[in-house]
Amino acid sequence: MALSRIPTRTVERLGRYRRIVRERAGAGSQTLFSHELAALAAGTAAQVRRDLMSIGCTGSSNYGYRISELLSSIAKAIDGPDEQRVALVGVGHLGAALIGFVEHCCPNLNIAAAFDTDPAKIGRVFHGVRVYDDGSIPQIVEAQRIAVAIVCVPGDAAQEVVDRLVAAGVTGVLNFAPVTLRAPLNVFIEQIDMTVALEKVAYFTRQDSANRKER
Amino acid sequence: MALSRIPTRTVERLGRYRRIVRERAGAGSQTLFSHELAALAAGTAAQVRRDLMSIGCTGSSNYGYRISELLSSIAKAIDGPDEQRVALVGVGHLGAALIGFVEHCCPNLNIAAAFDTDPAKIGRVFHGVRVYDDGSIPQIVEAQRIAVAIVCVPGDAAQEVVDRLVAAGVTGVLNFAPVTLRAPLNVFIEQIDMTVALEKVAYFTRQDSANRKER
Repeated sequence: MALSRIPTRTVERLGRYRRIVRERAGAGSQTLFSHELAALAAGTAAQVRRDLMSIGCTGSSNYGYRISELLSSIAKAIDGPDEQRVALVGVGHLGAALIGFVEHCCPNLNIAAAFDTDPAKIGRVFHGVRVYDDGSIPQIVEAQRIAVAIVCVPGDAAQEVVDRLVAAGVTGVLNFAPVTLRAPLNVFIEQIDMTVALEKVAYFTRQDSANRKER
Repeated sequence: MALSRIPTRTVERLGRYRRIVRERAGAGSQTLFSHELAALAAGTAAQVRRDLMSIGCTGSSNYGYRISELLSSIAKAIDGPDEQRVALVGVGHLGAALIGFVEHCCPNLNIAAAFDTDPAKIGRVFHGVRVYDDGSIPQIVEAQRIAVAIVCVPGDAAQEVVDRLVAAGVTGVLNFAPVTLRAPLNVFIEQIDMTVALEKVAYFTRQDSANRKER
């Protein structure tokens, strides 16, 4: 096991802590206690301390953690040393929204190319990202050594798109298509399942408030 | 504790099972083993059997579970008896994509109203859903007894929008804004954190394949 490896769930929690810590920094705070971070991240203070300890951050019982130190330690742990190139496939409403979003929220990631099958979109530029013909996925992904892809095509097109991305060298996929994707074991797939998330909210909205408080 | 209450994580897994089971049904299968479902849902067969047992589904060692029974049991467990009305706030690219998506993927949910602050959008209709002035959230949400809301406004506007939704009676929020929301304990908030998901994919893409296989 490589020293650098952090478990999936921890990477996810560290990302969430970072968002919260940035919000606190934006509100003028310079320090933060583990129990405050835990409350905002819907976790426990012990978990927060364990996660932060695992990336070399220790707090003080007097003032908690220094926000500047938290941000630099989390960045060192989960961000790459260089910008990573990303391909986005499917420039519908969702794809167009994501191009702007990544640009804004993920400074270490650079959407190097977008792809679509619609002739009316090919050649257009969204937030500085050019849309290429879907057929040129192999050449462009390989030539630009793109390893990360965002898939927001309709469900029935997703598997075939992922097969071609993987053949061209992609090893990480963020999938918004509402289907279960198959990929080789060395490919990491993260699924954003909006239907499941919404069904969950709808379910809990129907429960009585006493039940909800147990959550 | 009400009999009907299912833990958050279980509701989420049941929703995911349903997507997979539907895909299998679409491919012509009539039965499915717990270990097959587990492999597709990235879980264990024991977990699958426990979850399904909790909603009254038992499989056979000969053929597994009947797909028709799985679908009706999951629907009975997590869908409401009636259609639920949903409000969507923020009709940018993401909001417009979500209106079409919910329409297509969540037959039990009905986006009754969308809201935006942009005069160019107010009065327009997206996939059959009318966009109202953001200022009319209190009246419309209350009059239509809307309890579920999807929030896809920019981060700096999200808390204020949620405060108004909650004041008008909303008790479940699916939040796409990249900020941590505060709400009373009786309000269920589900956060879709696209930045965190993408950072996670980017992180694992940088690890060596041996590490990834452990996942």
